[in-house]
Amino acid sequence: MKRPTIADIARLAGVSKGAVSYALNGQPGVSESTRRRVLAIAEEIGWNPNGAARALSGAPSHTVGMVLHRPARILGVEPFFMELISGVEAELSARSYALTLQVVADQPAEIAVYRRWWGERRVDGVLVCDLRVDDPRIPVLSELTLPTVVVGMLGESAELVSVWSDDAAAVVEAVEYLSALGHRHIARVGGLPELRHTAARTAAFEEVCRRLEVAPALTISTDYTGEDGARATRRLLSSPRRPTAILYDNDVMAVAGLAVAHEMGFSVPADVSLVAWDDSVLCQLVHPPLTALSRDIPAYGGHAARQLLDVITGLPASSVQDETAHLIPRGSTAAPPSATGRGA
Amino acid sequence: MKRPTIADIARLAGVSKGAVSYALNGQPGVSESTRRRVLAIAEEIGWNPNGAARALSGAPSHTVGMVLHRPARILGVEPFFMELISGVEAELSARSYALTLQVVADQPAEIAVYRRWWGERRVDGVLVCDLRVDDPRIPVLSELTLPTVVVGMLGESAELVSVWSDDAAAVVEAVEYLSALGHRHIARVGGLPELRHTAARTAAFEEVCRRLEVAPALTISTDYTGEDGARATRRLLSSPRRPTAILYDNDVMAVAGLAVAHEMGFSVPADVSLVAWDDSVLCQLVHPPLTALSRDIPAYGGHAARQLLDVITGLPASSVQDETAHLIPRGSTAAPPSATGRGA
Repeated sequence: MKRPTIADIARLAGVSKGAVSYALNGQPGVSESTRRRVLAIAEEIGWNPNGAARALSGAPSHTVGMVLHRPARILGVEPFFMELISGVEAELSARSYALTLQVVADQPAEIAVYRRWWGERRVDGVLVCDLRVDDPRIPVLSELTLPTVVVGMLGESAELVSVWSDDAAAVVEAVEYLSALGHRHIARVGGLPELRHTAARTAAFEEVCRRLEVAPALTISTDYTGEDGARATRRLLSSPRRPTAILYDNDVMAVAGLAVAHEMGFSVPADVSLVAWDDSVLCQLVHPPLTALSRDIPAYGGHAARQLLDVITGLPASSVQDETAHLIPRGSTAAPPSATGRGA
Repeated sequence: MKRPTIADIARLAGVSKGAVSYALNGQPGVSESTRRRVLAIAEEIGWNPNGAARALSGAPSHTVGMVLHRPARILGVEPFFMELISGVEAELSARSYALTLQVVADQPAEIAVYRRWWGERRVDGVLVCDLRVDDPRIPVLSELTLPTVVVGMLGESAELVSVWSDDAAAVVEAVEYLSALGHRHIARVGGLPELRHTAARTAAFEEVCRRLEVAPALTISTDYTGEDGARATRRLLSSPRRPTAILYDNDVMAVAGLAVAHEMGFSVPADVSLVAWDDSVLCQLVHPPLTALSRDIPAYGGHAARQLLDVITGLPASSVQDETAHLIPRGSTAAPPSATGRGA
């Protein structure tokens, strides 16, 4: 089946190609009845404006792009990205925008994709995740005219719009809670250290531990996988100065850590308290259910998508702070063994 | 910053625009040293071929599309789609293809997206999921020249390529296992009845129950949500002829069903056996872990993506059967209460 053309419509409607063009573009020069007949025929034979021709004239693609520099398989395991994407999709679909995802192996490849998308007008804008401490994408994206919203804390760079959440405040809430329960040895199983929000969490963790005289503020770095989370937990629970509480930078690692505690014969929370971040259905399904730092991640994604559509359509948009994760205590946290009665 | 043009490269290289064009397109007419200089300058200033102009000449978009006719939020909850998409992404990213997702409210909207993508050459091909019993997308997609691979059993329609899994064989394996344990009252909490694979499962369930003289082969239809799965389980466990085993059409409903059994004071598996389908990390995290019909869903997605890339590049491609889900017995299945010792 051939792609229908304006010539096909003209033939079927018995008018000139010029008249079809006037009718389709809403220009004067044809009668209202001709316009209606042309539109009905165009609809019937499935005519669509040629996107390539429209793009040449600068028409929007009604597509938003996201480049993910993560192994593709982790998308099916870690709930965070899927919840974020589901929130982005909900907002985009309501405005009839599509989302183009591309998984890449490294940052140069990611930057090449932005340049290509920009050059080829494939997307009207991009959402950028997983900001790094010294992120080479920021100067490139600032320089390009491609509308961009950063999902995460942008810090000093004020050239791009971001939607962010206060990671430091959430760390403080979790550590203050554990400290109030009597914990004096709190460790953290952190995410990729080169990520900006990991660095913010580490700095806040060290500061609050110092302030509350909780020591040592040990953070073990991981790649966010369950395997790395299990390994870090095994190392912490085997150490002579075993922590009585562990804070994890994601849910997958916290769940893996809980399994390691069971495997090593430690009772949760009697021997060790565990806190997950971000909360997800995984945290609520395990036994005991995990105390977690929780926030509405689909809403966060939706918020970022709305900001991006504002940037794309030229509405005023500036960086906004989204909800801070708050602690939801469940069965995985309690007073440490030595602190029973709090006076010990 | 202005989008760099061929004129910019010509000016910087000190050659004509024609010479730049020859160099960039690998045509004769320029010296090797000029070609190298032109390519280096093009790279340096971030020049990209204008995608719109390339699309007009029929160049591929290196993008694959998927339209999802599901509430966007379910993407973040049900592992199936994310695992499928992660497998698709892994295959596409290895070939530098992007994936465009669009969530729509109904099938007419879905068909309109295919027509638009096809008209505008936004994608080189599409993956189609959630096939319905009498699916209006099939004739449209068969008629369009847009390369298509159907993820799921296509049945009689031989015009499109599909990658499918034998749902009927998996149902038979699960029911035969439960029957061998001694179960005579097995119920099923099924997915959307209008989906083709739900119909195939229901037919196979009824047939195997008849053959094994297991009665009644009751299927309660749901919308796949945990809420609907909980409601169906509550109804089954409240019935005077309570089933001793329940087979669920997804993992989210099985997990919700397990919580309902606990809430109603039934012990799993002593009072009632539960089987989930498809298996996922959710099934392994609950207590007891759920017996499940399991298959490698990312591999299924990867398989579908490979077939589609073959169709797109004009390689011979035909429908192929993927792995059949196999039963992984875990702690949620055992002999029914009345069958202890099997002789009762």
